[in-house]
Amino acid sequence: MTLNVYLSGEIHTDWREQIIEGSRGLDVSFHAPVTIHENSDDCGVAILGEEPNKYWHDHKGAMVNAIRTRKGIADADVVVVRFGEKYKQWNAAFDAGYAAALGKSLIILHGADHQHALKEVDAAALAVAEEPSQVVEILRYVLTGSLPA
Amino acid sequence: MTLNVYLSGEIHTDWREQIIEGSRGLDVSFHAPVTIHENSDDCGVAILGEEPNKYWHDHKGAMVNAIRTRKGIADADVVVVRFGEKYKQWNAAFDAGYAAALGKSLIILHGADHQHALKEVDAAALAVAEEPSQVVEILRYVLTGSLPA
Amino acid sequence: MTLNVYLSGEIHTDWREQIIEGSRGLDVSFHAPVTIHENSDDCGVAILGEEPNKYWHDHKGAMVNAIRTRKGIADADVVVVRFGEKYKQWNAAFDAGYAAALGKSLIILHGADHQHALKEVDAAALAVAEEPSQVVEILRYVLTGSLPA
Amino acid sequence: MTLNVYLSGEIHTDWREQIIEGSRGLDVSFHAPVTIHENSDDCGVAILGEEPNKYWHDHKGAMVNAIRTRKGIADADVVVVRFGEKYKQWNAAFDAGYAAALGKSLIILHGADHQHALKEVDAAALAVAEEPSQVVEILRYVLTGSLPA
Amino acid sequence: MTLNVYLSGEIHTDWREQIIEGSRGLDVSFHAPVTIHENSDDCGVAILGEEPNKYWHDHKGAMVNAIRTRKGIADADVVVVRFGEKYKQWNAAFDAGYAAALGKSLIILHGADHQHALKEVDAAALAVAEEPSQVVEILRYVLTGSLPA
Amino acid sequence: MTLNVYLSGEIHTDWREQIIEGSRGLDVSFHAPVTIHENSDDCGVAILGEEPNKYWHDHKGAMVNAIRTRKGIADADVVVVRFGEKYKQWNAAFDAGYAAALGKSLIILHGADHQHALKEVDAAALAVAEEPSQVVEILRYVLTGSLPA
Amino acid sequence: MTLNVYLSGEIHTDWREQIIEGSRGLDVSFHAPVTIHENSDDCGVAILGEEPNKYWHDHKGAMVNAIRTRKGIADADVVVVRFGEKYKQWNAAFDAGYAAALGKSLIILHGADHQHALKEVDAAALAVAEEPSQVVEILRYVLTGSLPA
Amino acid sequence: MTLNVYLSGEIHTDWREQIIEGSRGLDVSFHAPVTIHENSDDCGVAILGEEPNKYWHDHKGAMVNAIRTRKGIADADVVVVRFGEKYKQWNAAFDAGYAAALGKSLIILHGADHQHALKEVDAAALAVAEEPSQVVEILRYVLTGSLPA
Repeated sequence: MTLNVYLSGEIHTDWREQIIEGSRGLDVSFHAPVTIHENSDDCGVAILGEEPNKYWHDHKGAMVNAIRTRKGIADADVVVVRFGEKYKQWNAAFDAGYAAALGKSLIILHGADHQHALKEVDAAALAVAEEPSQVVEILRYVLTGSLPA
Repeated sequence: MTLNVYLSGEIHTDWREQIIEGSRGLDVSFHAPVTIHENSDDCGVAILGEEPNKYWHDHKGAMVNAIRTRKGIADADVVVVRFGEKYKQWNAAFDAGYAAALGKSLIILHGADHQHALKEVDAAALAVAEEPSQVVEILRYVLTGSLPA
Repeated sequence: MTLNVYLSGEIHTDWREQIIEGSRGLDVSFHAPVTIHENSDDCGVAILGEEPNKYWHDHKGAMVNAIRTRKGIADADVVVVRFGEKYKQWNAAFDAGYAAALGKSLIILHGADHQHALKEVDAAALAVAEEPSQVVEILRYVLTGSLPA
Repeated sequence: MTLNVYLSGEIHTDWREQIIEGSRGLDVSFHAPVTIHENSDDCGVAILGEEPNKYWHDHKGAMVNAIRTRKGIADADVVVVRFGEKYKQWNAAFDAGYAAALGKSLIILHGADHQHALKEVDAAALAVAEEPSQVVEILRYVLTGSLPA
Repeated sequence: MTLNVYLSGEIHTDWREQIIEGSRGLDVSFHAPVTIHENSDDCGVAILGEEPNKYWHDHKGAMVNAIRTRKGIADADVVVVRFGEKYKQWNAAFDAGYAAALGKSLIILHGADHQHALKEVDAAALAVAEEPSQVVEILRYVLTGSLPA
Repeated sequence: MTLNVYLSGEIHTDWREQIIEGSRGLDVSFHAPVTIHENSDDCGVAILGEEPNKYWHDHKGAMVNAIRTRKGIADADVVVVRFGEKYKQWNAAFDAGYAAALGKSLIILHGADHQHALKEVDAAALAVAEEPSQVVEILRYVLTGSLPA
Repeated sequence: MTLNVYLSGEIHTDWREQIIEGSRGLDVSFHAPVTIHENSDDCGVAILGEEPNKYWHDHKGAMVNAIRTRKGIADADVVVVRFGEKYKQWNAAFDAGYAAALGKSLIILHGADHQHALKEVDAAALAVAEEPSQVVEILRYVLTGSLPA
Repeated sequence: MTLNVYLSGEIHTDWREQIIEGSRGLDVSFHAPVTIHENSDDCGVAILGEEPNKYWHDHKGAMVNAIRTRKGIADADVVVVRFGEKYKQWNAAFDAGYAAALGKSLIILHGADHQHALKEVDAAALAVAEEPSQVVEILRYVLTGSLPA
């Protein structure tokens, strides 16, 4: 059983690397959005032509990024959504809602201080973790049945 | 043609009332989450029993609220999601993602300053408005074909 | 908003009547399986002809009852499943699984002693209650936003 | 044609091993829940943190196990559900209902004494067997067309 | 609960009338294909223009009839398919397969002599009856829980 | 049986009126896009704000119109798509494809000269007509079984 | 592009072998029901135990065969259904209806004399052929774009 | 991540070759309709028999081509639809609508002069490009995150 896992959300820390690194040896296939912030913001105009209006600049980019995001979530067995300490991160919550409506198994990853604000998102999840290492343990358990010592 | 419209998101201003009031005479059926903040926060424990741990207190409430939210979105033709000036509002973005995945027609309502942060949410919408009156005009046009003078 | 509620499970106590009675004045439409135990057991052979083998006797009845159960669950917004004190009640758990896979909002109703045995069923629910009156309060809250005093 | 088979239900006897062993040489891919009872019960708190309340202890574990169960059933062509002699086994009946609603081919495996109590579950099945060896014979027939001598 | 019932198949006897007549007083809404044989055969060319080739004559008619059949089956809770004594009746079996794939509750109605030839069709049904009066009894039981005296 | 019919495509002749007028007395509910050409072109900017770039001017309008079109097609039993003599009418073909993928019953209405160019669209239809009166005859036949004298 | 083709229907001539043989070198994966008539009839009782009543004997077998049929059709891109000269062949028409409702591409294969009786089945097909060699030519064209010389 | 891309629409220029050539080294699997115009027009009659009536000649061919088109779109993650300078190209717009209804990621490719006529089609797309090289850049970005220098 290969587990297809999509890693959505925060792009300013190395949580994805921690999970991928920690999962070595497990039969997991990881996918994620483009995490090069600048490219993600500018991909629309860089490829399809400049827009003087910032709204359409953003719009074109968000649409191109959606090609990758939609496939990533559609193909996933498990969608992990990480909420970091900063920024609005509405795209993370949007991905969580999108994945929930498709019946994907959701794991939400966030610090204790976001607990109340994320209660509706957490309520759609099968697991709520604080640390990337806990996500690794979940994947290990789901695939092998073994628990941390 | 009755249009079923779900009004999701911000609960601290009277935007829902403005839309409902402005839509008088149109064949629209409006639905919304429970907007009494206190009840929405406490419904789980008030009905199903106290929880000493704040996380489970919130969780029980979010689950009960989901009964209403899911039906509201599932039955809707159009989902309007309003992002206000304050708070994280992750539940609003979650609802938007959930509605998008179900193929609902989305209208997003927010101020100009949230434009960049909401670009992925806006990219899933059929209309992005700043004022409740614009939502009314959209509903009027969709139902009758007439535009503001 | 009319809420369509299917009341599945235990047929030996008056919990359905309590919920229906308590919900007077709320915009709820209740449905349930045939609760006349004898008819439910014998409907297949009574209509379609005797079977000497008890297995096929039961089978024919279960199939005819499925016509009603499937429609009841398919049309429901909310499926309440009650586990009583006695019997195996595998049909109740089956209905819960069936409803969960269809994305219905599940409310599970059972005594505290069944908590461990029902943990997988409860985990699929949006609310777990012990008393029929709590189900009434949930329906009231979902429809009106008001909580018990 | 590889047949994807999920083996749900009773975890106290070696029926899974019997089926897997008997199916050697057939093009079947078997999957199952975690069958180490203790790990299955404690996985939630072991990974995500202790819960003083037994209900939430169980809940966290059931949710984590659901990640594996949902994928197992979703990917399956055939779901075999075994009901043993003891315990409530509501999770087995829940899985059967869940699989039925997704249109999976169900094989139910149980002793003659459970016949009446399981009639609704059996009624959703394409085969009802008493012995693991019969499940092997079904898989062999489905894949090769050959019957036991 | 209104039960939506589609009456498919044989058009040479009055079995539909018997069922509709017998169901008086029950909350059932019946639908059926066009049963005027000549109109059913010629509707395509009568409306859309003559075809010298009999195959296209038949084809045009079958396509127009499909508008009614598809809606009838799509809207139905229960699909009753009657196989008469004569003719190939492949359209009846086609409707049964179509309804089965949509998850409709199937009732098959045929004489004992067709038992072996219809075994795959019967295997997809929730009830197999020989007489229209049995279908009436099933509908009565499903709607009211009462059995024939 | 009320038939829900969506009338898509050409907006420069009175074919919709002919069909609606001819269908008087039949149990049909008709829906259509906004057919006031100017409003349809300008609805986006008139409600949501001017766009200096013609592409975004068109885009905003097309998105708002999609709210109505999507609901019209989603709710329809039958989608009639009319191709006129002039213009590209790609939106008509797009609607036909959209409706086909949703499994709607399609009736295509066009002159004989478009036959070759529309062959892929016609191939997805249950009826291909040249005159609005033929559509009326189809609706009459589907609802009543009677054919033109 | 591998084309997954299910060959349903008549089991008394070598039409499947002709198609498989003729398709050598094409990227097609063929599947079919068990075509050993005796095994197909007796599989249920041979594995799951004798039934004195012929109806249940047939029923048990039809159910076991359905495990293979459902997977074959569910996995198929193209379903070919062959109607031979003899027998009722209702299972063939049932499979055609089942496949049509799932949106599979249907090819129907039958002699000219069955044209009128199969008109509803043919109307759901993308191709109606008389000879197995024509099915081979269709598969070759679909995969390579080349036509018979 | 392999991206499955279907290239629909115009068949008179080498835009498909440009995209395939430009995408060398990217993990993309390309599919397309049969682009040999003559074969595409005549496949139906060449395989299934002549038709004196041009309409049925075209119809038979369009149906056979639909076997390939439907699979191509159904399997695709991304559907690129190219509108050329000439012809009605209604099949291209039909494919775009079909793909949109299935929730596929759409990229529309056309010259600036078609902007107004294609506004409804463009409104369903995640990207609108003028040059095949832009499609290549989108595929490169979606798969690797890198942008043109």
